[in-house]
Amino acid sequence: MKIAISGKGGVGKTILVSLLSRIFAESGYSVIAIDADPDANLAATLGFPHPEKITPISEMSALIEERTGARPGQAATYFRLNPKVDDLPEKYCQEYNGIRLMVMGRIKKGGSGCYCPENTLLQALVTHLLLARDEVVILDMEAGIEHLGRATAKAVDKLVVVVEPSRRSVETAYRIDKLAQDVGLQNIAVVGNKVRNQSEKEFLISSLPKFEFLGFIPYDQVIVDADLANLSPLDASQQVIAAVKDIYQALLSTRVESH
Amino acid sequence: MKIAISGKGGVGKTILVSLLSRIFAESGYSVIAIDADPDANLAATLGFPHPEKITPISEMSALIEERTGARPGQAATYFRLNPKVDDLPEKYCQEYNGIRLMVMGRIKKGGSGCYCPENTLLQALVTHLLLARDEVVILDMEAGIEHLGRATAKAVDKLVVVVEPSRRSVETAYRIDKLAQDVGLQNIAVVGNKVRNQSEKEFLISSLPKFEFLGFIPYDQVIVDADLANLSPLDASQQVIAAVKDIYQALLSTRVESH
Repeated sequence: MKIAISGKGGVGKTILVSLLSRIFAESGYSVIAIDADPDANLAATLGFPHPEKITPISEMSALIEERTGARPGQAATYFRLNPKVDDLPEKYCQEYNGIRLMVMGRIKKGGSGCYCPENTLLQALVTHLLLARDEVVILDMEAGIEHLGRATAKAVDKLVVVVEPSRRSVETAYRIDKLAQDVGLQNIAVVGNKVRNQSEKEFLISSLPKFEFLGFIPYDQVIVDADLANLSPLDASQQVIAAVKDIYQALLSTRVESH
Repeated sequence: MKIAISGKGGVGKTILVSLLSRIFAESGYSVIAIDADPDANLAATLGFPHPEKITPISEMSALIEERTGARPGQAATYFRLNPKVDDLPEKYCQEYNGIRLMVMGRIKKGGSGCYCPENTLLQALVTHLLLARDEVVILDMEAGIEHLGRATAKAVDKLVVVVEPSRRSVETAYRIDKLAQDVGLQNIAVVGNKVRNQSEKEFLISSLPKFEFLGFIPYDQVIVDADLANLSPLDASQQVIAAVKDIYQALLSTRVESH
C-alpha cells in the first residue's frame, strides 16, 4: 500500500505519518517512510539518531546514470524497471525502530533553485516501486498544494488530507481534492486533527460533507509540552495513539490495492 | 519599505500580514499586500469580497510582452525599468479598506506544473518596484523554505520569520536564516506567535538567542472561535491587535531602507 499524507502547513502531517509508520511496523508491516518536504522534520520526529547520513533520493540520479548510462535528467526512466523494495540501495534508507526512512532532497543553498528535479525523481520512484502485500510506503508531503501541480504523489493508493478545526485548513482540503482529481487520484480521505470538543468535530464533518473521514485525533496539550521539553511527542499521549490506531484500521478496511 | 513574512506552515503568517497591512494603512501608508503562497488565503483573511477577480502577477507576463515585445520567459526584464506603484496596471491590484492586494499566481490544474515562473516574475517585481517613503509592500510567503531556494524575496528590506512555541518552527527559522544569508538577505527578525505564557516566551528567546525579536503575540482562543463562527479573526482579539501594533513600531524603529 502506498499512502501520501497531505494538508495545510501546521495541521499535523508529520506526527500522523510518524505514528502511522510506527503502528504499521508494530503490526508486522515493512514500512518505508518518505519525507517529501524540503523543510523536513520527519527524521527528527521519528527519533532517527543521524538523519544527516541518509543520502536523499534526489542523489540516486548520479548512481542510476553510473549504472545504466541514462543521461542527466532522464534518470527517472530507470524506475520503469519496477524495482522492488529490496533493490533500493542501502545508503538511501536508514532504518530505526523497524521503519526505513528515505528523504526526497537535501536543503540547498539559498537561491540555488527549486525542488522540481527532486519531485520528479520521487514521483518516478513511488510510481514504479513494486510492493509486496506486507510492505507499505508512507509519504509526508510538503505543506500546501504545489506538490499536486507537480503530481508527486499521483501513484499512491490513498491520499490522506489532514485538517484541523479551521476554515483555512478546510479550504486547503478542497483545493487538494480538486487538484488530486486532475491527476486521476480519486481515493482520498480526511483525518480531523487537534479536535478539542464535539462542536469542532461537527464543524469539520459539516464543512466536508462529501469526504470520507478516517478518524479524528483529539487535541492534547501534552504533545505540545513534550515537544518543548525535548521529549518525543510520539509517546506523550495515549489518547492520540489510540485515535491513530483507529485510523490505521480504517486505512486497512478501505484498502484498494492498485500497485 | 518592503517586508516579507515567512515561517513554517501554520505559525500564523497570514494573520500577521493582514494585521500589519491594516495598521500600516490606518497609519497613513499606502499598502500593497502580496499573497505569494499558491495555497492562498490572504484575500479571504483581509475580507476582500471578490478575490477571484484579481488578475495574478504571473499573468502580467502576457501584458508586458504585448507592450514591450519581450519574448516569452523574458518578461521579468521589463521590471528593470523600475516601475512605480502607480504604474502597476489596475487589474492586478484590488483595493479594499485602504489595502491594495496582489496575488502571485492562480491555482493551476493538478499535474500542470510548479510555481517557478510565478516566483521569477514576483521576484523581478519586488526587486525593481520603486517605493515612495510612505509606501510599503508586505509579502505573505509560502510555508517552509522552497521560496528561498528560488530567492523570491531576496530584495526585501526586512525578512520577518514567524515562530510559535514548537521545536519544529524554530528549526525552520534557522533554515530560513541560513538560506536567506545565502541570497544576501541579512536584515532578518523574528516574531513569536501563539505564546501562551512566560515559559513559552522564554523557550523561544532561549532557542533563538542570536535573533532580533520584533515582538510576541499571545495565543488567544477567541481568534480560533471567530474563525469557526465565520467571523473575521482580525477584529476578534484586542490583545493580539495591540501586540501587532508594537511589532509595527519595532519595524519602523529598525527600518533600513535600501530601495
